[in-house]
Amino acid sequence: MPRRRAAPTAAIRFDVVDAPEAIAAIARTAAGIGGRVRTLATVRSIAGEPPQVEVELEVEGVDEEALVASIGALEDVRAIHRTRALGSVFGKRIIVVGGGAQVAQVALGAVSEADRHNLRGERISVDTIPLVGEANIADAVRAVADLPRAALLVLAGSIMGGEISAAVDELREIGIPVIALNMAGSITEHVDLVVTDPVQAGTMAVMAVADTATFDLARQRGRRN
Amino acid sequence: MPRRRAAPTAAIRFDVVDAPEAIAAIARTAAGIGGRVRTLATVRSIAGEPPQVEVELEVEGVDEEALVASIGALEDVRAIHRTRALGSVFGKRIIVVGGGAQVAQVALGAVSEADRHNLRGERISVDTIPLVGEANIADAVRAVADLPRAALLVLAGSIMGGEISAAVDELREIGIPVIALNMAGSITEHVDLVVTDPVQAGTMAVMAVADTATFDLARQRGRRN
Repeated sequence: MPRRRAAPTAAIRFDVVDAPEAIAAIARTAAGIGGRVRTLATVRSIAGEPPQVEVELEVEGVDEEALVASIGALEDVRAIHRTRALGSVFGKRIIVVGGGAQVAQVALGAVSEADRHNLRGERISVDTIPLVGEANIADAVRAVADLPRAALLVLAGSIMGGEISAAVDELREIGIPVIALNMAGSITEHVDLVVTDPVQAGTMAVMAVADTATFDLARQRGRRN
Repeated sequence: MPRRRAAPTAAIRFDVVDAPEAIAAIARTAAGIGGRVRTLATVRSIAGEPPQVEVELEVEGVDEEALVASIGALEDVRAIHRTRALGSVFGKRIIVVGGGAQVAQVALGAVSEADRHNLRGERISVDTIPLVGEANIADAVRAVADLPRAALLVLAGSIMGGEISAAVDELREIGIPVIALNMAGSITEHVDLVVTDPVQAGTMAVMAVADTATFDLARQRGRRN
């Protein structure tokens, strides 16, 4: 799937009154200075009267000064901090889902390999959740499509199939590749690559998304290592 | 810091024309049915004419049917999928930042402990990034404040201080606790808890945020284990 290079993105965090119209006014204000809202995320709630929320806002196509000035002029907004777009800090994300023992070993390989690439100026994160059960894991696979900057999913477990395999098909269709450990179940027929050693699976996952690596997942597709 | 329990949140993902006003119209529409936008995140760009983006939208205080109907009625919106709020899938996040070797060991402890809690119905993720350099790590510490659902930061390394310590002070001030490995530098004077063994640090980090654990970080504050 083609992905455009993101234009420079201004990022701020601020408190705003927690009301439908106050939040909508933020997006309208960003559009008013010609910006495209890339992220508007409530990161914390602040009890009080009126209740407020703390919002992280990333807007593409605007100057940071203009963004601070226009959002700061809104009546319901307080305490603006300048910050950085999350992509510039945490970068591409490898997502690891499955059983705890295997997830930990995949993470070991992926973190070690990400360290090597991040030392050379890349930004690759390794984000994990240990889960059990076909429905829970299938939900998590589908939710990877909703995560900003998710670049690749690794499924780490001993048996997966059924609804998880269906969810993997959907995820690959929108352009997110999937690596699975060699395991029981139909999952190994539905992924881009099957790897037996979890540390190597994590390493290969990072290599597949790194700009500073020459590993091309497309050339490995369907293989079992 | 007080945190309110989130009300039920409807979540959808859809394609929308990538223009300032088209994105602002989404927030306005959600407000029009009485919803508070909790997340509006661009997850992918779709090349084409006109260019589109795929957006994940979470709105509190509305019914899913009403959200689908109102957003689906917008001229610039296509291909609506029903999805789930990310918090219900990935839950609270432990963030681990630092040197690759130590980050991997903290992740091992944290993933193993999260597995035990998630088996009992919680949702705890372990999200990591290996980074080097005072400025890079300080930026990442500050950016934890911008991450949705970040519950606790673990700093894993051999020497940290200076700007990183200042960033930790800021992060704790907004209510996010910090655990550090026992290491050289001033960082150990600025965190909630210092732990020597990285696997134990990861385990304790998860225990500190888990609902199904009895570990209270406040009672350990300032200790060195």
